[in-house]
Order: sequence, then structure tokens, then C-alpha cells
Amino acid sequence: MCAKTTIMASPLLKENKFWLNGREQTFDSPRLSNCIKAIRARCDETLPQFNWKISICSENNFPTAAGLASSAAGYACLVHALAQLYEIKGEISDIARQGSGSACRSIYGGWVQWHKGDLPTGADSIATQIAPADHWPEMRIIVLVVNDCRKKYSSTSGMKTTTETSTLVKFRAESVVNQRAKAMKKAIEDKDYESFAEITMKDSNQMHAICLDTFPPCVYMNDTSHAIANLVHSYNEYKKGQKVAYTFDAGPNACIYLLQSEVEQFISVVNHVFPKPADIDAVEYYRGLTLPNKQLDKKIVDDLNLTPHDTGVLKYIIYTKVGGGPQVLGDPSEHLLQDNGLPKQ
Amino acid sequence: MCAKTTIMASPLLKENKFWLNGREQTFDSPRLSNCIKAIRARCDETLPQFNWKISICSENNFPTAAGLASSAAGYACLVHALAQLYEIKGEISDIARQGSGSACRSIYGGWVQWHKGDLPTGADSIATQIAPADHWPEMRIIVLVVNDCRKKYSSTSGMKTTTETSTLVKFRAESVVNQRAKAMKKAIEDKDYESFAEITMKDSNQMHAICLDTFPPCVYMNDTSHAIANLVHSYNEYKKGQKVAYTFDAGPNACIYLLQSEVEQFISVVNHVFPKPADIDAVEYYRGLTLPNKQLDKKIVDDLNLTPHDTGVLKYIIYTKVGGGPQVLGDPSEHLLQDNGLPKQ
Repeated sequence: MCAKTTIMASPLLKENKFWLNGREQTFDSPRLSNCIKAIRARCDETLPQFNWKISICSENNFPTAAGLASSAAGYACLVHALAQLYEIKGEISDIARQGSGSACRSIYGGWVQWHKGDLPTGADSIATQIAPADHWPEMRIIVLVVNDCRKKYSSTSGMKTTTETSTLVKFRAESVVNQRAKAMKKAIEDKDYESFAEITMKDSNQMHAICLDTFPPCVYMNDTSHAIANLVHSYNEYKKGQKVAYTFDAGPNACIYLLQSEVEQFISVVNHVFPKPADIDAVEYYRGLTLPNKQLDKKIVDDLNLTPHDTGVLKYIIYTKVGGGPQVLGDPSEHLLQDNGLPKQ
Repeated sequence: MCAKTTIMASPLLKENKFWLNGREQTFDSPRLSNCIKAIRARCDETLPQFNWKISICSENNFPTAAGLASSAAGYACLVHALAQLYEIKGEISDIARQGSGSACRSIYGGWVQWHKGDLPTGADSIATQIAPADHWPEMRIIVLVVNDCRKKYSSTSGMKTTTETSTLVKFRAESVVNQRAKAMKKAIEDKDYESFAEITMKDSNQMHAICLDTFPPCVYMNDTSHAIANLVHSYNEYKKGQKVAYTFDAGPNACIYLLQSEVEQFISVVNHVFPKPADIDAVEYYRGLTLPNKQLDKKIVDDLNLTPHDTGVLKYIIYTKVGGGPQVLGDPSEHLLQDNGLPKQ
């Protein structure tokens, strides 16, 4: 799962332009402007490109605005590319954060912590890497993309309303988050899957509890999301330990974290409980890395005794692992812009 | 919405028996035994009925175990009837609480507060009446009974897991509940609907937030429940004030509190968004008091611009008002038992 950005600066460009997933966007959005302004503030003004107009072209290979952190990946990629263009060295996660809060994490690969920071300006609310991507090579991620027809809430405006109206959010921020962040860091460093899984699920649930405590409430999980969580708890109960963990962000889609050794059996149960629609091709339905074996494991399915849902409840499944962070693509054929500054497609 | 209980004591009965909604139940359930034991402990042992076996027959005119407090109504009715039989005077809400916590409230009519109490025994966790049923005669209740095929959680075991695993529940109990209970009492005393509505919705949401913060999570509301909450917020936004309030208990069904003046317009919107299935008779679908007018109010429906759901999302609708509490039915034709101690039907 990744975002890709090409930026061209040229004295020949007449105006600044921005395309996202093939569609031209306004260049004047506050998020984009903030990032560009912050990057340029650190740029050596004598560089010729400082005065040139730019063309930006970005795309994600996964759904936008579906609670899969597309803006985190997108802004991290954009800010990294801007930093290359304007020859900025050093910390840029604070700049990425101005595009999308969680983008500061995506500036680094592997396992990353976003620090709350103490300064009123937020300048020290940056990200640091806990461990590189190859630290825990067995870790896998399965994203269950859920069909959803519910009205979407913007996660930014949702969080604003939450801090204004939830009576629980302050307690969570002051008394729960720090302790959990410490325990999570240790679990990652120790590659302690069971602790990792328990904190992941508990904190996902508490985040959604806080959203529900907002007035009016923000509801991101739907019946399918809860059915997935229920499946994970049944699976873990059967396995007598936390073997699979779910987490939900600002949308109904489940991110499942599990070790490679568990993937075959778990995906078998998922396929039984949420059957693939017959009219969707397997190549369309199973995306990302190749799943080991999608055959039904009859024993575990029988033992768990879970009732299958109708087909079509899941849209598709992405199988992936922890990524390595931003990379510069040297090969011009990879670039998204033509020499005239317009998108290739 | 009510529960009805007939108890017969007779020297001719050979054994204790208990029927609920037409089905014989075990007499040895801990909840039933606790209530009977507690009532008998206060009874004058020289009364002849103290030594007779009893037959108990109970029924609810609304669904059991659907999060509509059927056990609260049932145990309040049972304990009130037992108190009549054993000639107990004075406070009995502490006894009803041993059948079902919230039954202590249903011992009184009108607006009732259940006090947390301070004693470790729980003996002072009783209910008191804030105001009689006729204090706020304009108040109406619409119960939207939701079709649900989700696995049920018992509310008692759910609450036990919550106190053991939720990191938020203690904060809620210590820092939120008392203040809200006071504000709610004042809103009822002052007949301040807007405050009543806001506290009702916020506290319902927070209760479900706490359930979600339980591990594994307890989820009582489903997509339809959230769609109802969303409809209420849209309605109130349109009306520029809190005119309708929802609350959800340990199930997906919505209890809507609203003033009589709002019923006609609100039910019109409900009927538009959640259409009655054509194959269900209106008499089956609209239960309780007669709804004023179920005609579509085209203006508000157009202005709100809410998309109708499929038919069948709601099972039926109950229209009712605040009840007057337990009553003794003198007319023998009302009794549920025959002279031989067996149910009439």
C-alpha cells in the first residue's frame, strides 16, 4: 500500500498545479499551502527552483478517504518529495503533520511513534522510528475493505468535535494513552505479539468509544466491522491466546495484524464467514502480496461455528506488510508527469 | 408497556411453580430465589401463607430480553405482588433490585431515580420517586423496535466484564454520573425538555462508549440504531433545538422521548426513513397508544433530505407514556392463574 508523488519545478511552468488520483485539485487548500510554506521557509532562497512554479501529481494504490490513512501516506510522500526538490535536510515529520496529523509517522518506515509533544506551538509533535521494517519480519497486515453506504464523517472535524464535547477524551489523553504507548513500544521492541495484539485492539475500541462519546456521536465502525471484531475474538478464544488483532481507523475497514504463521488459517475463516462474491475475480478481490492458501480449513471453521454472512459484505482484501518508508524513484519511467508538467495519463 | 403477575399461595399446592410468558421456568433461579428469600425475611412468620407453596405466573406485553427492560418491569411487578401476598409494608425497591438492578426503579411510577448508595452491602442502593407520572403530562415515548440478528450479550455479564476491563468506566462513575444525575433531576423537576434531551442522548452514547471500551467489546447498538440516532440529530438540527431524544439500553431498540406536540411530525419522518413493510398490518405495526396522524409531512421530509431505508428494518413501533407504577388488579378475570394454580392459557 503506497502513495506516489512526482513534483516538477520549472521556469517554463506558468502556474502551480496539483493532481490527485488523476483529478486536478485546487492548489489553495490550507493543508497543501501549509506544507509548501513550511518547506520553503527552510529552503535556501538562492536556489533557482525557489522561484519556479511547480506541478504536483500524486496517486494512492488504495482507497482515498476510507479510513485507511490515505492522506497520511499522501502528505508524507508529498513532503518528502518537496524536501528533495528544495534540498531540505533533517526533520520534516513536523511539516508532514501540517498536511495530515498522522502523515508525520509515514515519513519514516517500519515501526514509528508519533510524539504528542509539549510545546504549545506543536513544533515538537513529531515522529520517531521505534524499529526499522525488517525488525519484525514475520508481521503481516490484512486489510478487510468493508462495503459501506453510511454517511462519512471527516476525521479532522470529528476529532475537533470530540475534544469539544467528549467528557471522556481528556481522561483518555491524560491517563491512558501515555501508558499504552509505552507498553506498545516495549511490545514492538520485544516482538511480543500477544501484548501487541491486546493493546492494539483495546486502543482501537477505546478510540471508537471516545468517538461515540462525542456529541453528536461519530460512528465509524458498522455492523460488518463489529462482526469482524467478533470473529477475531472467537478465533483468539479458540486458539487460547491473542493470535490476531484488529484495529479500525476513521472508517469501517479492519486492519488485521497477525504473524505470517497465522495467515493461512485466519484467511480461511475470513473467507468462510465473509464469502467472496462469485462475480468478482480473485485477482480483483485479493490484492497486494500473494495469500498463501485460500482453501477452507474445515476443522477450524466447524469448531468456531460462525454463521457466514451474505456475499458482498467485504469489497476486497489487501494483504501486505510493514513498509520501509519514502523512497526516491530514480527511473524516469516511474514518474507521473510529462516533460510539459501535465500528468502522463 | 407493562408486566402482569399473579401469585397464588395455597395449602393445596404441592410445589412451587413459575411461568413466564406462557412457559414454565425453573423456580430455582438465583434471582427469583433472592427476591422470595428477601421478602419472606420481612414477613410475619405466623401468617398462614408463610408456609404455603406458591404459583407465580407473569407476562410482559412487550419483548423479553430485547433491551427494553423487561426484567426490570417483571421483577418490580413480581416483588410488588409478593409484598402484597406476604403483607409487607415499606421500602421494597432494595428487594426488587436483587431480581434485576433496574427493577428497583420500576417499583415506583412516574420519574424515578436509582441511588448508587454508599454501603458495601448495597442495602441503600434503592430508588426514590422524583415526580409522579402526571408531573409532565406532555411527555411521550416512542419505542422503535429494531430487527436484529446479532448475537446477544447478557447485560448482566456484560456489565461485569465492563467493570473488570474498561479503563474509562471508573472515571465515568466517579466524575460524570453524579453530575449528570443531578442535572437530569433538575431538568425533570423544571420540565426543561432541551436539557432533558441533551443529557439523555449524551448519557446513552457514553454508556455504549463504555461498553465498547470493554474487552472483548460489548456492542448493543447496530447500524439501524445509529441511523435512528442520526435521524434524531438531523431532525433537531433542522428544528434548531433538541426536540427529540433517543436512548438505547442493552439492545438495538431506540426509546425516543419527545413532547406530545412533536409526535406527529417526528413519526412522519420515521415512517419516511424506515418504511412500514406492506405485508404487516398497521394494527400489528403501531402498538400502544394511538398515534395522532401517520400521514407524510412532505415539507420536513424534503427539507431533511434523508434517504429511506429498506422496509423491514424496524419490526414495529410502540407509542406510550410515562407509567404510574405497580397496581393491584382487583378483578379476578384479570388474573393469570386458575383456581388450581395453573395458568389460564
